[in-house]
Amino acid sequence: LTATDQSAVNNSADNVILAGDRVLFYYDARRTWLTRVTENSPPFHTHVGIIKIAEAVGLAYGSSIITTLGCRIFLLKPVALDYIMKSERRTQIVYPKDFGYIAARSGLRSGCKVFECGTGSGGLTTFFASLVYPTGVVHTFEEREDFINIAKKNVERTGFSSVVKFEHTNPTRTERSSYQAGSYDLALLDTGDPWNLLPLASDLLRGSGFVFCICPTTNQAETVCEALSQNFVDVECVEILLRRIEARLGKTRPSMRMIGHTCYLASGRKIKPEPPLENS
Amino acid sequence: LTATDQSAVNNSADNVILAGDRVLFYYDARRTWLTRVTENSPPFHTHVGIIKIAEAVGLAYGSSIITTLGCRIFLLKPVALDYIMKSERRTQIVYPKDFGYIAARSGLRSGCKVFECGTGSGGLTTFFASLVYPTGVVHTFEEREDFINIAKKNVERTGFSSVVKFEHTNPTRTERSSYQAGSYDLALLDTGDPWNLLPLASDLLRGSGFVFCICPTTNQAETVCEALSQNFVDVECVEILLRRIEARLGKTRPSMRMIGHTCYLASGRKIKPEPPLENS
Amino acid sequence: LTATDQSAVNNSADNVILAGDRVLFYYDARRTWLTRVTENSPPFHTHVGIIKIAEAVGLAYGSSIITTLGCRIFLLKPVALDYIMKSERRTQIVYPKDFGYIAARSGLRSGCKVFECGTGSGGLTTFFASLVYPTGVVHTFEEREDFINIAKKNVERTGFSSVVKFEHTNPTRTERSSYQAGSYDLALLDTGDPWNLLPLASDLLRGSGFVFCICPTTNQAETVCEALSQNFVDVECVEILLRRIEARLGKTRPSMRMIGHTCYLASGRKIKPEPPLENS
Amino acid sequence: LTATDQSAVNNSADNVILAGDRVLFYYDARRTWLTRVTENSPPFHTHVGIIKIAEAVGLAYGSSIITTLGCRIFLLKPVALDYIMKSERRTQIVYPKDFGYIAARSGLRSGCKVFECGTGSGGLTTFFASLVYPTGVVHTFEEREDFINIAKKNVERTGFSSVVKFEHTNPTRTERSSYQAGSYDLALLDTGDPWNLLPLASDLLRGSGFVFCICPTTNQAETVCEALSQNFVDVECVEILLRRIEARLGKTRPSMRMIGHTCYLASGRKIKPEPPLENS
Repeated sequence: LTATDQSAVNNSADNVILAGDRVLFYYDARRTWLTRVTENSPPFHTHVGIIKIAEAVGLAYGSSIITTLGCRIFLLKPVALDYIMKSERRTQIVYPKDFGYIAARSGLRSGCKVFECGTGSGGLTTFFASLVYPTGVVHTFEEREDFINIAKKNVERTGFSSVVKFEHTNPTRTERSSYQAGSYDLALLDTGDPWNLLPLASDLLRGSGFVFCICPTTNQAETVCEALSQNFVDVECVEILLRRIEARLGKTRPSMRMIGHTCYLASGRKIKPEPPLENS
Repeated sequence: LTATDQSAVNNSADNVILAGDRVLFYYDARRTWLTRVTENSPPFHTHVGIIKIAEAVGLAYGSSIITTLGCRIFLLKPVALDYIMKSERRTQIVYPKDFGYIAARSGLRSGCKVFECGTGSGGLTTFFASLVYPTGVVHTFEEREDFINIAKKNVERTGFSSVVKFEHTNPTRTERSSYQAGSYDLALLDTGDPWNLLPLASDLLRGSGFVFCICPTTNQAETVCEALSQNFVDVECVEILLRRIEARLGKTRPSMRMIGHTCYLASGRKIKPEPPLENS
Repeated sequence: LTATDQSAVNNSADNVILAGDRVLFYYDARRTWLTRVTENSPPFHTHVGIIKIAEAVGLAYGSSIITTLGCRIFLLKPVALDYIMKSERRTQIVYPKDFGYIAARSGLRSGCKVFECGTGSGGLTTFFASLVYPTGVVHTFEEREDFINIAKKNVERTGFSSVVKFEHTNPTRTERSSYQAGSYDLALLDTGDPWNLLPLASDLLRGSGFVFCICPTTNQAETVCEALSQNFVDVECVEILLRRIEARLGKTRPSMRMIGHTCYLASGRKIKPEPPLENS
Repeated sequence: LTATDQSAVNNSADNVILAGDRVLFYYDARRTWLTRVTENSPPFHTHVGIIKIAEAVGLAYGSSIITTLGCRIFLLKPVALDYIMKSERRTQIVYPKDFGYIAARSGLRSGCKVFECGTGSGGLTTFFASLVYPTGVVHTFEEREDFINIAKKNVERTGFSSVVKFEHTNPTRTERSSYQAGSYDLALLDTGDPWNLLPLASDLLRGSGFVFCICPTTNQAETVCEALSQNFVDVECVEILLRRIEARLGKTRPSMRMIGHTCYLASGRKIKPEPPLENS
């Protein structure tokens, strides 16, 4: 049983864990481990006992193995979000509540072309890659070498890296020949000054393509929304809050703790700018 | 210039509106019209003047035409959400904040197999179809004939209907031969009693596949979360709130009105149930 | 049975409606009427029938009368909030979620002295007056004559007007002799430019007294919080959201509609400013 | 300079710290100390240096003293909330966002009579006492001896204890002669089963008086709201969320962390129950 390069992204009908697969070992919501398994993988020491991960090879996803302390560990097939949550991070990540909304609003799907600036730790890159796979592309720019190296490593193990093109540079200093103007479906701007990238985004996007800007502060949201009114329509700015509910028989209530803020999402759809009408 | 059947889902590099394309005519966020254009399409009367929609054929997406009252109308390429928002609806729709999260959490992407019960007006069906297109499938069940007829019409015009399989029946009364057990990546339960469908969902899903239940009330969330602990792990229940920000130079603030509630999302990942361990 | 001037603010032990009392006639949450009753009050025509309000005189609060259409109308003793909600308004009102927090944070209570700028329709004035009554004072400033006339009328009928001192002027143009410096417990700034009033507020407040600024926009909140760091400590800025829950047997859920924003509340406690320390 | 028993609740015009006063020593929002000062108070050791608290006597509120490490400590007059936040607690406290709303909705003010069950650590008791002071009463019941002892100590030091009447018993087992039926303005139920106390609350309250129930779970909210429809009108259930804003020049944003849930507040106004009308 050996996994091919594509195994991570295959939906194998027989659902069997192959040597070389990455598996999410699940004990409970806070105790999970994501690692590659082979017949020779050394056992893994945890607070709930030793997990002999090599035993997973040949088992079905969804089945379980028992630790040396008698705890049951379930074998789950990781999805993009699991990889993101388990990635090495040096930057604030974007959360599923946020990137799910970006995808849903912009119509992102297989075959789409995405421009991303900057890559950060590659979390959003991974999510976008999973959606445009296998025929689209995520063209991602990052100036900091330490970030891009981490991002590459993070994306590679997900199995989606074939659709990601990393560029270690500032996209505004890139030759126009390095990308096809008017061909991108989504431009994602995750920098401190997204307004400075709007002319480039406008050049890259196909007509009616979406730009999304990740804005941690109200000031950034305000500045970029003003700038968006130039070459974009359907401008909107939203914030999305997720609250966990502890649903238990007879004592259901929201969680006491929640994340109060991640970012504002400012967006628009690219238009061909026109001179103002005489009568307006 | 004639659009083939596939045009609606193509990302044509040249980005030109073909006869037969569906186009989103955009004046402002509240005044948009989604319609199919041909060289013979009759003009469209609106409060901002007559729109000669036939003029759109041959223009690039993102360009604009002028109404008889001198208003500029932009020509946008619709995405799945535009179709959903412009669809005929007899049921409460699920919002992008919610279905974006479902997709992001479950790793939905091209090639995935989705089981949906019930179809309703086909909003979620459209969104899922756009994500699994062109190689996946959305297998959707609806008992009410009036709903399924509307849903079919709604999905057909989006260009994604080739991956949707409609069933006008209650899935629990379906022969097990009509679907492949253990092969679905996501089961979406949008009925009043999702707990009654969990055994079926468990049978359909591949090991570690996701079930998501749309729960308008806290009572449903509580009951289904209790039931989920049987054959699922990583059980969570969340609610997602979206707040619009009116970002304007020097006077930025959240919108006065917002939607206070749509639904709770209860979810889990399918496992192979095991007898309890002796020591636990 | 005749109410004295003080009846509206008395908690009469016998709880009987006196001629001259203001009564809240309650049919359901959306159909209520607040009016003064006497033995000669003319009947009141409503969609649920004619209410013979004169019948209320002599009945106990909490009892009910029947309309000509057979609907039961309950007779409730109005509290400050009822007066505010039923007042004539030309300005955005501050909501109980907000003014309740202001009172709770600042320790407002009987005997306190409040400075308010501006009065608006007198909603906050009424609430503050009810709390400082009978020995405190609300000193409220409003430049617009139409507003102050409405506010006076609104406050008068509540029975708390004896502790309210209206000033039809801009407080920054007021002689310092018109107020006692260092004697106020709370300064409430509800104008477009609260930062311009901070020096005055600082002069008015006793040491460690509270200033609260009502800020509809993020820009105002930002500017005033920066300014507050001059003469105030314990500076905080909050927003408060209220969500209604429709609690019903077996189908409890939050309301679909909610108010997404009213204002930010920026506050601080007055200190005696000191020169910076050498070592800091 | 010696404070009388009443000093803590006096608003002394001259605003001078008297021996015996309780003072809030403020360094920053997270480093504050509330203690009684006399000319003989021993110095207080902190991470920002030794505070010679005896030096505070004779200074004005709002002024400051310097620690041995050269840090400036401001001398603030504590309000009810400061006492609550600094109290010894064995129970979950109710937050100002919540109790401020209760006061604002119910019209609580000087002279009102409050029934509270149970006392817990006395946080709400303190807040209510400060509002009804000096002529009202808070009649509070608690079955657990350890709680009531803590609550007594907590309330005593606030200076408002003269209006609080503690009862170490279950109020439903109390002789009806121990309270005056129909005389209370507000009944506050903070127990696990508030519905069982509604008949008593109804007996205690004056007609159109308010009952408020603190409900941590949706189940409690649902049950008590159903029960409220018996003897109460204007039934509502709300939850209140407070979000802190970090307002800073050019980089304003909400706090990343927030409290996601404290409780639901279910309330109603007491009516005299009537037989159903024939035509309804």
